[in-house]
Amino acid sequence: MILEEEIKQHLRDVRDFPQPGILFKDITPLLGHPAIRRKTVEAIALHFSQYSIQAIAAVEARGFIFGSLIAQELDIPFVPIRKAGKLPYKKIDQEYLLEYGTATIEMHEDAFAPGSRVLIHDDVLATGGTAVAAAQLVQQLAGIVVGHSFIINLSFLPGEQRLKNQFGLRPHYLVKY
Amino acid sequence: MILEEEIKQHLRDVRDFPQPGILFKDITPLLGHPAIRRKTVEAIALHFSQYSIQAIAAVEARGFIFGSLIAQELDIPFVPIRKAGKLPYKKIDQEYLLEYGTATIEMHEDAFAPGSRVLIHDDVLATGGTAVAAAQLVQQLAGIVVGHSFIINLSFLPGEQRLKNQFGLRPHYLVKY
Repeated sequence: MILEEEIKQHLRDVRDFPQPGILFKDITPLLGHPAIRRKTVEAIALHFSQYSIQAIAAVEARGFIFGSLIAQELDIPFVPIRKAGKLPYKKIDQEYLLEYGTATIEMHEDAFAPGSRVLIHDDVLATGGTAVAAAQLVQQLAGIVVGHSFIINLSFLPGEQRLKNQFGLRPHYLVKY
Repeated sequence: MILEEEIKQHLRDVRDFPQPGILFKDITPLLGHPAIRRKTVEAIALHFSQYSIQAIAAVEARGFIFGSLIAQELDIPFVPIRKAGKLPYKKIDQEYLLEYGTATIEMHEDAFAPGSRVLIHDDVLATGGTAVAAAQLVQQLAGIVVGHSFIINLSFLPGEQRLKNQFGLRPHYLVKY
């Protein structure tokens, strides 16, 4: 079976989460299946193995799970991106728009050296708001955004197009809905 | 150099975080050092390799990082424990006391089969409030708590003693302050 189908068999649809009308793709069953979880990590690492990536930055909390596994597989530093107020040390921040209001994410100011080639990871690409803000954080520290990695792309939402327009990069994902 | 010293060299003291008077142990530099990060994961996995562990449950958000790496190293399911309202599917919850007020953590009700041998992971053992609540979640689903794994034990706080008293198990950690 191709990997996309194997992963899809270990994703769970949850209706009306986080709000009514949303069909949420839950990665929990995938996390509970070590063999397919490993194939998922290896496929992402293989795709990016020729990109000379020097750090992977991932967005809390779900992004930390595969983000750290990809970092381990590629043997590179892991950089946590967190919601406002969660990181302890000196940091930079980036605000972004939500449907109603705004949110802020933060990264430590010494997360990587200027000029570093950084991959950004999160589990799901939806509207792209968080993914754009994460890339802007990397650019604030003079990092080079070499790509975006997701498990799932919700292709009926504008995230993929936004990332292409704004960074000239096609995001990488294993599963499309 | 012994591993404890290597890890300590990649922890950072941050004063007055999250509140005045607290000296916070920041694991971010360790996450940024792939070789020592890997040794850390291997040491924990080796310690628990004879425990026939069937799942590792870790507490968001920092616990997800080493929690997923340990799960990968042991080739077992990873179970996320999250703050209230974050998990999408049917779930159980456990309230616990904070210094002022209470907090609630949750786990999916199908996280593992009854009777499963479950290891609990978080990065830092402090007062033990979260660690006790996480173990109670596992017991609510008739799981067997086979141990608690931490990177750091703040031994001037009562966490270790609480876990020993309540579960009859000495928590495992690599670094003590």
